[in-house]
Amino acid sequence: MKPAIKAFVFDVYGTLFDVHSVTAACEKQFPGLGVQISQAWRKKQIEYLFLRQLMERYRPFDQVTREALRFTVKEHQENLSDLQEQQLIEEYHRLTPFNEVEDVLKALSGNQLIILSNGTSDMLASLIKRANFTSYFTSILSVDKIKQYKPVPASYNLVLEDVDAAPEEVLFMSSNGWDITGAKSFGFQTAWINRSGLPKEELGFTPDIIYSDLTGMLEWNN
Amino acid sequence: MKPAIKAFVFDVYGTLFDVHSVTAACEKQFPGLGVQISQAWRKKQIEYLFLRQLMERYRPFDQVTREALRFTVKEHQENLSDLQEQQLIEEYHRLTPFNEVEDVLKALSGNQLIILSNGTSDMLASLIKRANFTSYFTSILSVDKIKQYKPVPASYNLVLEDVDAAPEEVLFMSSNGWDITGAKSFGFQTAWINRSGLPKEELGFTPDIIYSDLTGMLEWNN
Repeated sequence: MKPAIKAFVFDVYGTLFDVHSVTAACEKQFPGLGVQISQAWRKKQIEYLFLRQLMERYRPFDQVTREALRFTVKEHQENLSDLQEQQLIEEYHRLTPFNEVEDVLKALSGNQLIILSNGTSDMLASLIKRANFTSYFTSILSVDKIKQYKPVPASYNLVLEDVDAAPEEVLFMSSNGWDITGAKSFGFQTAWINRSGLPKEELGFTPDIIYSDLTGMLEWNN
Repeated sequence: MKPAIKAFVFDVYGTLFDVHSVTAACEKQFPGLGVQISQAWRKKQIEYLFLRQLMERYRPFDQVTREALRFTVKEHQENLSDLQEQQLIEEYHRLTPFNEVEDVLKALSGNQLIILSNGTSDMLASLIKRANFTSYFTSILSVDKIKQYKPVPASYNLVLEDVDAAPEEVLFMSSNGWDITGAKSFGFQTAWINRSGLPKEELGFTPDIIYSDLTGMLEWNN
Protein backbone atom coordinates (compact mmCIF):
# COMPACT_ATOMS: atom_id res chain seq x y z
CA MET A 1 0.00 0.00 0.00
CA LYS A 2 1.29 3.44 -0.90
CA PRO A 3 1.70 5.82 2.02
CA ALA A 4 -0.26 9.10 1.98
CA ILE A 5 2.05 11.61 0.34
CA LYS A 6 1.60 15.35 0.81
CA ALA A 7 4.59 16.51 -1.25
CA PHE A 8 6.53 15.05 -4.17
CA VAL A 9 10.07 16.39 -4.09
CA PHE A 10 12.42 16.19 -7.06
CA ASP A 11 16.17 16.42 -7.26
CA VAL A 12 17.24 18.25 -10.43
CA TYR A 13 20.74 17.37 -11.69
CA GLY A 14 20.71 13.84 -13.05
CA THR A 15 17.06 13.32 -12.03
CA LEU A 16 14.98 15.81 -14.06
CA PHE A 17 17.83 17.06 -16.26
CA ASP A 18 20.58 15.07 -17.93
CA VAL A 19 23.96 16.33 -16.69
CA HIS A 20 25.54 14.42 -19.56
CA SER A 21 23.81 16.52 -22.19
CA VAL A 22 27.12 18.46 -22.01
CA THR A 23 28.87 15.46 -23.60
CA ALA A 24 28.57 16.75 -27.19
CA ALA A 25 30.00 20.15 -26.18
CA CYS A 26 32.86 18.40 -24.33
CA GLU A 27 33.52 16.23 -27.38
CA LYS A 28 33.62 19.32 -29.61
CA GLN A 29 36.22 20.99 -27.35
CA PHE A 30 38.18 17.79 -26.61
CA PRO A 31 37.76 15.36 -29.53
CA GLY A 32 37.75 11.73 -28.42
CA LEU A 33 37.34 12.67 -24.74
CA GLY A 34 33.74 13.95 -24.61
CA VAL A 35 32.24 11.07 -22.64
CA GLN A 36 35.21 10.72 -20.30
CA ILE A 37 35.38 14.43 -19.52
CA SER A 38 31.64 14.78 -18.99
CA GLN A 39 31.61 11.85 -16.59
CA ALA A 40 34.73 12.90 -14.71
CA TRP A 41 33.44 16.48 -14.47
CA ARG A 42 30.22 15.33 -12.82
CA LYS A 43 32.08 13.09 -10.35
CA LYS A 44 34.47 15.88 -9.45
CA GLN A 45 31.63 18.36 -9.06
CA ILE A 46 29.96 16.08 -6.50
CA GLU A 47 33.26 15.47 -4.69
CA TYR A 48 33.87 19.23 -4.49
CA LEU A 49 30.38 19.87 -3.10
CA PHE A 50 31.05 17.28 -0.39
CA LEU A 51 34.53 18.63 0.36
CA ARG A 52 33.42 22.25 0.61
CA GLN A 53 30.64 21.24 2.97
CA LEU A 54 33.04 19.17 5.10
CA MET A 55 35.68 21.91 5.19
CA GLU A 56 33.00 24.49 6.03
CA ARG A 57 33.92 26.43 2.88
CA TYR A 58 30.61 26.71 1.08
CA ARG A 59 30.59 28.33 -2.36
CA PRO A 60 27.66 28.43 -4.79
CA PHE A 61 27.04 25.49 -7.11
CA ASP A 62 28.02 27.39 -10.27
CA GLN A 63 31.46 28.23 -8.85
CA VAL A 64 31.99 24.63 -7.71
CA THR A 65 30.90 23.37 -11.14
CA ARG A 66 33.47 25.64 -12.79
CA GLU A 67 36.27 24.57 -10.43
CA ALA A 68 35.44 20.91 -11.04
CA LEU A 69 35.66 21.51 -14.79
CA ARG A 70 39.10 23.11 -14.44
CA PHE A 71 40.45 20.16 -12.48
CA THR A 72 38.91 17.62 -14.84
CA VAL A 73 40.43 19.18 -17.95
CA LYS A 74 43.87 19.34 -16.32
CA GLU A 75 43.52 15.74 -15.14
CA HIS A 76 43.03 14.79 -18.80
CA GLN A 77 46.19 16.75 -19.73
CA GLU A 78 44.23 19.21 -21.82
CA ASN A 79 44.15 23.00 -21.77
CA LEU A 80 41.06 25.11 -21.21
CA SER A 81 40.94 28.66 -22.56
CA ASP A 82 38.67 31.22 -20.88
CA LEU A 83 36.40 31.06 -23.91
CA GLN A 84 36.19 27.26 -23.83
CA GLU A 85 35.44 27.36 -20.12
CA GLN A 86 32.70 29.91 -20.67
CA GLN A 87 31.14 27.85 -23.45
CA LEU A 88 31.08 24.67 -21.37
CA ILE A 89 29.66 26.45 -18.33
CA GLU A 90 26.93 27.98 -20.50
CA GLU A 91 26.14 24.48 -21.73
CA TYR A 92 25.64 23.50 -18.10
CA HIS A 93 22.93 26.15 -17.87
CA ARG A 94 21.13 24.58 -20.84
CA LEU A 95 20.88 20.95 -19.74
CA THR A 96 18.22 18.83 -21.44
CA PRO A 97 15.38 17.33 -19.39
CA PHE A 98 14.94 13.58 -19.64
CA ASN A 99 12.23 12.55 -22.14
CA GLU A 100 9.67 11.31 -19.66
CA VAL A 101 9.79 14.27 -17.25
CA GLU A 102 6.95 16.35 -18.69
CA ASP A 103 4.48 13.43 -18.75
CA VAL A 104 5.27 12.65 -15.14
CA LEU A 105 4.86 16.27 -14.03
CA LYS A 106 1.50 16.40 -15.85
CA ALA A 107 0.35 13.15 -14.25
CA LEU A 108 1.25 14.36 -10.75
CA SER A 109 -0.06 17.91 -11.15
CA GLY A 110 -2.64 18.82 -8.55
CA ASN A 111 -0.19 17.58 -5.89
CA GLN A 112 2.46 19.70 -4.24
CA LEU A 113 5.46 19.30 -6.55
CA ILE A 114 8.68 20.69 -5.13
CA ILE A 115 12.26 20.99 -6.31
CA LEU A 116 15.12 20.59 -3.83
CA SER A 117 18.53 21.08 -5.38
CA ASN A 118 22.15 21.90 -4.66
CA GLY A 119 21.94 24.33 -7.61
CA THR A 120 21.57 28.06 -7.02
CA SER A 121 18.13 29.66 -7.34
CA ASP A 122 19.21 31.44 -10.54
CA MET A 123 20.46 28.24 -12.15
CA LEU A 124 17.30 26.37 -11.21
CA ALA A 125 14.90 29.10 -12.35
CA SER A 126 16.67 29.35 -15.68
CA LEU A 127 16.77 25.58 -16.34
CA ILE A 128 13.12 25.12 -15.43
CA LYS A 129 11.99 28.11 -17.44
CA ARG A 130 13.87 26.93 -20.56
CA ALA A 131 12.10 23.56 -20.27
CA ASN A 132 8.68 25.23 -19.74
CA PHE A 133 8.22 23.41 -16.44
CA THR A 134 7.70 26.47 -14.22
CA SER A 135 3.92 26.09 -13.87
CA TYR A 136 4.17 22.52 -12.54
CA PHE A 137 6.10 23.36 -9.39
CA THR A 138 4.66 24.77 -6.18
CA SER A 139 8.16 25.55 -4.78
CA ILE A 140 11.73 25.65 -6.03
CA LEU A 141 14.07 25.21 -3.08
CA SER A 142 17.82 25.82 -3.31
CA VAL A 143 20.26 24.88 -0.56
CA ASP A 144 21.95 28.20 -1.30
CA LYS A 145 19.42 29.71 1.14
CA ILE A 146 21.19 28.00 4.05
CA LYS A 147 24.57 27.45 2.36
CA GLN A 148 24.65 23.77 3.27
CA TYR A 149 24.69 21.11 0.60
CA LYS A 150 22.74 17.90 0.40
CA PRO A 151 23.12 15.35 1.93
CA VAL A 152 23.35 17.24 5.26
CA PRO A 153 20.09 16.93 7.24
CA ALA A 154 19.54 20.73 7.29
CA SER A 155 19.25 20.75 3.51
CA TYR A 156 16.38 18.24 3.44
CA ASN A 157 14.72 20.14 6.25
CA LEU A 158 14.13 23.02 3.79
CA VAL A 159 11.19 20.96 2.50
CA LEU A 160 9.60 20.76 5.93
CA GLU A 161 9.97 24.52 6.33
CA ASP A 162 8.04 24.87 3.06
CA VAL A 163 5.18 22.39 3.44
CA ASP A 164 3.05 21.28 6.35
CA ALA A 165 4.03 17.62 6.34
CA ALA A 166 5.75 15.01 8.46
CA PRO A 167 8.99 13.64 6.94
CA GLU A 168 7.33 10.33 6.05
CA GLU A 169 4.60 12.20 4.13
CA VAL A 170 7.23 13.47 1.70
CA LEU A 171 8.27 11.35 -1.28
CA PHE A 172 11.75 12.33 -2.45
CA MET A 173 13.03 11.31 -5.88
CA SER A 174 16.64 11.32 -7.02
CA SER A 175 18.81 9.38 -9.42
CA ASN A 176 21.80 9.92 -7.13
CA GLY A 177 22.34 7.07 -4.66
CA TRP A 178 24.00 9.39 -2.13
CA ASP A 179 21.05 11.79 -2.29
CA ILE A 180 18.49 9.02 -1.80
CA THR A 181 20.51 7.72 1.16
CA GLY A 182 20.67 11.18 2.72
CA ALA A 183 16.93 11.74 2.22
CA LYS A 184 16.05 8.35 3.74
CA SER A 185 18.42 8.98 6.65
CA PHE A 186 16.58 12.28 7.21
CA GLY A 187 13.23 10.48 7.31
CA PHE A 188 11.63 10.96 3.87
CA GLN A 189 10.04 8.24 1.81
CA THR A 190 12.32 7.77 -1.17
CA ALA A 191 12.09 6.65 -4.77
CA TRP A 192 15.50 5.98 -6.29
CA ILE A 193 15.46 6.72 -10.01
CA ASN A 194 18.26 4.29 -10.81
CA ARG A 195 18.99 5.40 -14.37
CA SER A 196 22.41 3.72 -14.50
CA GLY A 197 21.42 0.33 -13.07
CA LEU A 198 23.79 0.64 -10.12
CA PRO A 199 23.70 -1.56 -6.99
CA LYS A 200 22.14 -0.14 -3.84
CA GLU A 201 24.44 1.88 -1.60
CA GLU A 202 25.74 0.00 1.46
CA LEU A 203 25.07 2.75 3.97
CA GLY A 204 22.32 1.22 6.05
CA PHE A 205 19.37 3.00 4.39
CA THR A 206 17.29 1.33 1.68
CA PRO A 207 15.17 3.27 -0.80
CA ASP A 208 11.44 2.55 -0.46
CA ILE A 209 10.96 2.27 -4.23
CA ILE A 210 13.34 1.81 -7.14
CA TYR A 211 12.44 2.78 -10.71
CA SER A 212 14.73 2.71 -13.73
CA ASP A 213 13.46 6.14 -14.80
CA LEU A 214 10.73 8.58 -13.74
CA THR A 215 8.08 6.78 -15.80
CA GLY A 216 7.52 4.59 -12.76
CA MET A 217 6.05 7.65 -11.06
CA LEU A 218 3.08 7.57 -13.46
CA GLU A 219 1.47 4.99 -11.16
CA TRP A 220 1.17 7.73 -8.52
CA ASN A 221 -1.37 9.54 -10.75
CA ASN A 222 -4.59 9.90 -8.78
CA MET B 1 63.09 29.66 3.94
CA LYS B 2 61.47 26.80 5.77
CA PRO B 3 59.11 27.80 8.58
CA ALA B 4 59.90 26.61 12.11
CA ILE B 5 58.02 23.34 12.50
CA LYS B 6 57.14 21.95 15.90
CA ALA B 7 55.27 18.85 14.72
CA PHE B 8 55.40 16.68 11.62
CA VAL B 9 52.00 15.07 11.08
CA PHE B 10 51.47 12.11 8.76
CA ASP B 11 48.34 10.79 7.15
CA VAL B 12 48.40 6.98 7.01
CA TYR B 13 46.31 5.43 4.23
CA GLY B 14 47.95 6.16 0.88
CA THR B 15 50.67 8.25 2.52
CA LEU B 16 52.67 5.90 4.79
CA PHE B 17 50.95 2.68 3.70
CA ASP B 18 49.97 1.59 0.22
CA VAL B 19 46.20 1.01 0.12
CA HIS B 20 46.73 -0.78 -3.19
CA SER B 21 48.83 -3.50 -1.62
CA VAL B 22 45.43 -5.28 -1.52
CA THR B 23 45.53 -5.53 -5.32
CA ALA B 24 47.09 -9.01 -5.41
CA ALA B 25 44.48 -10.33 -2.96
CA CYS B 26 41.70 -8.73 -5.04
CA GLU B 27 43.17 -10.30 -8.19
CA LYS B 28 43.24 -13.71 -6.52
CA GLN B 29 39.55 -13.45 -5.56
CA PHE B 30 38.46 -11.77 -8.82
CA PRO B 31 40.85 -12.77 -11.63
CA GLY B 32 41.36 -10.00 -14.17
CA LEU B 33 39.72 -7.38 -11.92
CA GLY B 34 42.32 -6.93 -9.16
CA VAL B 35 43.46 -3.43 -10.11
CA GLN B 36 39.99 -2.18 -10.94
CA ILE B 37 38.43 -3.49 -7.74
CA SER B 38 41.25 -2.21 -5.53
CA GLN B 39 40.98 1.26 -7.04
CA ALA B 40 37.17 1.38 -6.98
CA TRP B 41 37.15 0.09 -3.38
CA ARG B 42 39.41 2.92 -2.24
CA LYS B 43 37.32 5.55 -4.04
CA LYS B 44 34.11 4.19 -2.57
CA GLN B 45 35.65 4.03 0.90
CA ILE B 46 36.49 7.74 0.72
CA GLU B 47 33.04 8.60 -0.65
CA TYR B 48 31.39 6.66 2.18
CA LEU B 49 33.51 8.44 4.81
CA PHE B 50 32.40 11.77 3.36
CA LEU B 51 28.75 10.72 3.12
CA ARG B 52 28.57 9.38 6.65
CA GLN B 53 30.09 12.58 7.97
CA LEU B 54 27.66 14.72 5.92
CA MET B 55 24.62 12.65 6.95
CA GLU B 56 25.78 12.74 10.59
CA ARG B 57 25.93 8.95 10.62
CA TYR B 58 29.48 8.25 11.75
CA ARG B 59 30.63 4.65 11.84
CA PRO B 60 34.21 3.44 12.42
CA PHE B 61 36.62 3.23 9.50
CA ASP B 62 36.73 -0.59 9.48
CA GLN B 63 32.95 -0.81 9.07
CA VAL B 64 32.97 1.81 6.30
CA THR B 65 35.82 -0.04 4.57
CA ARG B 66 33.80 -3.26 4.64
CA GLU B 67 30.64 -1.56 3.31
CA ALA B 68 32.63 0.05 0.49
CA LEU B 69 34.04 -3.36 -0.46
CA ARG B 70 30.53 -4.86 -0.61
CA PHE B 71 29.32 -2.12 -2.94
CA THR B 72 32.41 -2.32 -5.13
CA VAL B 73 32.14 -6.05 -5.67
CA LYS B 74 28.44 -5.78 -6.55
CA GLU B 75 29.21 -2.88 -8.91
CA HIS B 76 31.58 -5.22 -10.75
CA GLN B 77 28.81 -7.86 -10.95
CA GLU B 78 30.74 -10.28 -8.78
CA ASN B 79 29.74 -12.16 -5.64
CA LEU B 80 31.49 -11.93 -2.30
CA SER B 81 31.23 -14.83 0.16
CA ASP B 82 31.64 -14.14 3.87
CA LEU B 83 35.00 -15.89 3.72
CA GLN B 84 36.21 -13.81 0.77
CA GLU B 85 35.08 -10.64 2.52
CA GLN B 86 36.93 -11.62 5.66
CA GLN B 87 40.11 -12.39 3.73
CA LEU B 88 40.08 -9.06 1.91
CA ILE B 89 39.36 -7.10 5.09
CA GLU B 90 42.24 -8.90 6.83
CA GLU B 91 44.44 -7.89 3.91
CA TYR B 92 43.47 -4.29 4.62
CA HIS B 93 44.88 -4.73 8.12
CA ARG B 94 48.22 -5.84 6.65
CA LEU B 95 48.92 -2.99 4.20
CA THR B 96 52.53 -2.54 3.12
CA PRO B 97 54.39 0.68 3.96
CA PHE B 98 55.93 2.54 1.02
CA ASN B 99 59.65 1.79 0.56
CA GLU B 100 61.00 5.16 1.63
CA VAL B 101 58.96 5.54 4.82
CA GLU B 102 61.42 4.10 7.33
CA ASP B 103 64.36 6.23 6.07
CA VAL B 104 62.22 9.35 6.36
CA LEU B 105 61.04 8.50 9.86
CA LYS B 106 64.67 7.89 10.89
CA ALA B 107 65.80 11.19 9.38
CA LEU B 108 63.08 13.13 11.17
CA SER B 109 63.39 11.35 14.51
CA GLY B 110 64.08 13.72 17.39
CA ASN B 111 61.14 15.84 16.17
CA GLN B 112 57.56 15.35 17.25
CA LEU B 113 56.22 12.85 14.72
CA ILE B 114 52.47 12.39 14.85
CA ILE B 115 49.92 10.30 13.01
CA LEU B 116 46.48 11.71 12.24
CA SER B 117 44.19 9.27 10.49
CA ASN B 118 40.59 8.40 9.73
CA GLY B 119 41.45 4.83 10.75
CA THR B 120 40.45 3.49 14.15
CA SER B 121 43.04 3.37 16.94
CA ASP B 122 43.12 -0.43 16.75
CA MET B 123 43.72 -0.46 13.00
CA LEU B 124 46.46 2.15 13.29
CA ALA B 125 48.24 0.49 16.21
CA SER B 126 48.23 -2.85 14.42
CA LEU B 127 49.51 -1.46 11.09
CA ILE B 128 52.28 0.53 12.74
CA LYS B 129 53.34 -2.33 14.96
CA ARG B 130 53.52 -4.77 12.04
CA ALA B 131 55.81 -2.31 10.24
CA ASN B 132 57.98 -1.80 13.36
CA PHE B 133 57.34 1.96 13.27
CA THR B 134 55.91 2.32 16.78
CA SER B 135 59.01 3.86 18.33
CA TYR B 136 59.18 6.70 15.79
CA PHE B 137 55.86 8.30 16.70
CA THR B 138 55.19 10.57 19.65
CA SER B 139 51.38 10.32 19.15
CA ILE B 140 48.94 8.28 17.14
CA LEU B 141 45.72 10.24 16.74
CA SER B 142 42.51 8.70 15.40
CA VAL B 143 39.44 10.76 14.47
CA ASP B 144 37.45 7.98 16.13
CA LYS B 145 38.01 9.86 19.38
CA ILE B 146 35.64 12.62 18.21
CA LYS B 147 33.73 10.59 15.59
CA GLN B 148 34.27 13.19 12.89
CA TYR B 149 36.22 12.37 9.79
CA LYS B 150 38.86 14.42 8.00
CA PRO B 151 38.54 16.86 6.31
CA VAL B 152 36.28 18.54 8.91
CA PRO B 153 38.17 21.20 10.89
CA ALA B 154 37.55 19.45 14.24
CA SER B 155 39.55 16.44 13.04
CA TYR B 156 42.70 18.48 12.31
CA ASN B 157 42.25 20.23 15.63
CA LEU B 158 43.09 16.93 17.37
CA VAL B 159 46.74 17.75 16.60
CA LEU B 160 46.53 21.09 18.41
CA GLU B 161 44.99 19.36 21.41
CA ASP B 162 48.03 17.07 21.43
CA VAL B 163 50.95 19.45 20.89
CA ASP B 164 51.69 22.97 22.02
CA ALA B 165 51.90 24.59 18.58
CA ALA B 166 50.19 27.18 16.41
CA PRO B 167 48.56 25.73 13.27
CA GLU B 168 51.29 27.18 11.04
CA GLU B 169 53.95 25.41 13.14
CA VAL B 170 52.51 22.05 12.08
CA LEU B 171 53.62 20.43 8.82
CA PHE B 172 50.97 18.03 7.59
CA MET B 173 51.76 15.40 4.96
CA SER B 174 49.25 13.46 2.88
CA SER B 175 49.07 11.91 -0.56
CA ASN B 176 45.36 12.67 -0.71
CA GLY B 177 44.55 15.99 -2.40
CA TRP B 178 41.34 16.39 -0.38
CA ASP B 179 43.22 15.83 2.90
CA ILE B 180 45.91 18.37 2.00
CA THR B 181 43.22 20.88 1.06
CA GLY B 182 41.39 20.33 4.33
CA ALA B 183 44.60 20.67 6.36
CA LYS B 184 45.59 23.88 4.56
CA SER B 185 42.08 25.28 5.00
CA PHE B 186 42.43 24.55 8.72
CA GLY B 187 45.71 26.48 8.84
CA PHE B 188 48.51 23.89 8.76
CA GLN B 189 51.58 24.05 6.57
CA THR B 190 51.16 21.25 4.07
CA ALA B 191 53.34 18.96 2.00
CA TRP B 192 51.36 17.13 -0.66
CA ILE B 193 52.93 13.73 -1.37
CA ASN B 194 51.62 13.55 -4.91
CA ARG B 195 52.34 9.90 -5.62
CA SER B 196 49.99 9.70 -8.62
CA GLY B 197 51.10 12.87 -10.39
CA LEU B 198 47.65 14.46 -10.20
CA PRO B 199 46.89 18.15 -10.84
CA LYS B 200 46.35 20.42 -7.84
CA GLU B 201 42.83 20.56 -6.47
CA GLU B 202 40.82 23.64 -7.52
CA LEU B 203 39.45 24.45 -4.10
CA GLY B 204 41.22 27.70 -3.34
CA PHE B 205 43.97 26.24 -1.10
CA THR B 206 47.43 25.49 -2.45
CA PRO B 207 49.86 23.07 -0.78
CA ASP B 208 53.04 24.74 0.49
CA ILE B 209 55.26 21.97 -0.85
CA ILE B 210 54.75 19.17 -3.36
CA TYR B 211 56.89 16.02 -3.41
CA SER B 212 56.38 12.98 -5.60
CA ASP B 213 56.99 10.71 -2.61
CA LEU B 214 58.11 11.06 1.01
CA THR B 215 61.80 11.04 0.04
CA GLY B 216 61.48 14.81 -0.39
CA MET B 217 61.07 15.02 3.38
CA LEU B 218 64.71 13.93 3.85
CA GLU B 219 65.69 17.57 3.30
CA TRP B 220 63.97 18.38 6.60
CA ASN B 221 66.62 16.35 8.46
CA ASN B 222 68.29 18.66 10.94
